[in-house]
Amino acid sequence: MLLVKLGGSVLTDKARLRTPRKAAIARLTKELAGLGDDVVVVHGAGSFGHVLARRYRLNGPASRVKAKGAAVVQRDVRALDALVVDGLLKAGLAPVVLPPSAVLGLDDGRVASFDLGPFKDYLRHGFTPVTFGDVVRDRTRGVAVCSGDVLMLELAKAFHPRCVVFAADVDGLFTADPKRVKGARLLLSVSKADLPLVEFTPAKGPDVTGGIEAKVHRMLEIAAHADETIIVNGNVKNRVRDALRGRIVIGTRVVGGP
Amino acid sequence: MLLVKLGGSVLTDKARLRTPRKAAIARLTKELAGLGDDVVVVHGAGSFGHVLARRYRLNGPASRVKAKGAAVVQRDVRALDALVVDGLLKAGLAPVVLPPSAVLGLDDGRVASFDLGPFKDYLRHGFTPVTFGDVVRDRTRGVAVCSGDVLMLELAKAFHPRCVVFAADVDGLFTADPKRVKGARLLLSVSKADLPLVEFTPAKGPDVTGGIEAKVHRMLEIAAHADETIIVNGNVKNRVRDALRGRIVIGTRVVGGP
Repeated sequence: MLLVKLGGSVLTDKARLRTPRKAAIARLTKELAGLGDDVVVVHGAGSFGHVLARRYRLNGPASRVKAKGAAVVQRDVRALDALVVDGLLKAGLAPVVLPPSAVLGLDDGRVASFDLGPFKDYLRHGFTPVTFGDVVRDRTRGVAVCSGDVLMLELAKAFHPRCVVFAADVDGLFTADPKRVKGARLLLSVSKADLPLVEFTPAKGPDVTGGIEAKVHRMLEIAAHADETIIVNGNVKNRVRDALRGRIVIGTRVVGGP
Repeated sequence: MLLVKLGGSVLTDKARLRTPRKAAIARLTKELAGLGDDVVVVHGAGSFGHVLARRYRLNGPASRVKAKGAAVVQRDVRALDALVVDGLLKAGLAPVVLPPSAVLGLDDGRVASFDLGPFKDYLRHGFTPVTFGDVVRDRTRGVAVCSGDVLMLELAKAFHPRCVVFAADVDGLFTADPKRVKGARLLLSVSKADLPLVEFTPAKGPDVTGGIEAKVHRMLEIAAHADETIIVNGNVKNRVRDALRGRIVIGTRVVGGP
C-alpha cells in the first residue's frame, strides 16, 4: 500500500484565505493514478483551514461558540477536498472521502478513537480513500484540530505502507528554512540523530498544527511503520509520482527508529 | 430531540440531473433554526443521486466498475449536501456532516454497522448533525444505496425523537398519487390498518430507493420509535417549522405500532 500526503502549502496559497492552487491540484491528483498499488491520500487544509482555525481558537478549551467556528472551517476544508476529489475522478480513480470528523475522535488533542473499517472496506472494493486535516470532536475540548500528519501516523501504523510520500513546497528538509536562510543545505536523509543539524525556526504563518519541528518528529515516527518514507517537492512535475514508484528522486529520506 | 428529513423532491428538481431548488434549500434550512431543541437533519439525494445511481446500477451485485460510478455519485451528493450545509450556516446553526459512507456499512442492502458515537458527541457540543442518502460500502455487493429513510429509521431507533418530520413535495400521504389521480384524498393519519385504503402506483421516475409504498412502510416503523411522526409539504412556507414546534399543521400523522 502507498500512503501520500499532499501538503496544504502545495494545494493552496497558504497566506490567502481559501485560495486553491488549481493547476497543482490537477497535476498532483493525476500523478496518483496508474501506480498499480492501493493508494490512500491525505491532504492538508492550507488556507482553507489554518487561517480561521487560528482566528476562532479551535484548538483552545471547550466553549459553546467553538461549534459555529468549527462548522465554518469544516465547510471550507470540504470545499478544498471537493477539488482534490474532482481531480482524482478526472484522473480515473474512484475516490471515497472519509472525513476525520466522522471517523476519528480526540481527547485533549490526542487520538482517542479511529475507525479503520471504512478504509479497509473501500480499499478492498477498488476505491482510493481520501482524508484530510480537519476540525474534529474532542472529549475534553469539545472540538480540536486534527492535522493531516496525525492521520498519516494512524494510517501508517494500521497499514504498514510500502512507501510514504510527503509532498511539500520545497525539495525536502533543509539545515535551515531555505526560504529565509541563504546557504541552507538539503538533507538527503534524516534520522533522529541528525536533528541537532537542523536549525528550526518558529512558524511565522498561521499554521495551527505545530510548525516544521513537530512535523519532522511525527515523520520520524511514521517512518518507523513504513518500508520507505520520503519528503519531496510537490511543485516539481512527476516527483511525487516517481517517489511513489520507488524511483530515486531529489528529496529527504526519513529514517525511523531510535 | 427533533429529527427531520428534507426530501430529495423538495431540495432538487428530481427529473433533471444535479439541479438544486436553491430557494427551497435556503427557506427550509432557515426553518430549522431557533427550535430550542437538538435537531438531526437527514436529506435525500434527489437528482444528485438517483439518476446516476440507476444508470450505473449501484444497487446491483459487486463489480470492479461499480467503484467509479459510486465515486461520481458520492461526489454529486456531497455537492447537494454542501448547499444544505451553507443554508444551515447562514441560518446560524453549526452543521457537522456525517456521511453514511463513512459511518455506516451495509450487508446485501441491510444495515450491518452504524457508528452513533459522532452523532451523540457533536450533539453534546452544540452541533447539528447532517446526513443524507448516499452510496455506501456493502459486504456482499461492494457498494449499495443507503436511502435517507434508512438513516431516519436508524436515528429514530437510537434517539427516540420527540418529533419526526418528513418534508415531501405534496401535503402528505394521499389515497392515490395526487399528481396523477384526480379526487385523491389526503389522509390525516395513517396506521398499518389504513394501508389497504391507499392505491400505490409503481414509481415512474428514477427513484432507486423503492418508491412510495416502501417509504410508507418504513415511516410506520420509524413512528414506533418517536412520540410524534408527520409527513408535511416542504414546499409550503413554515410548515416544517410549525410541525417541528408541535403545532397542528396540514399533513399526514403516521401512527406506528401493530
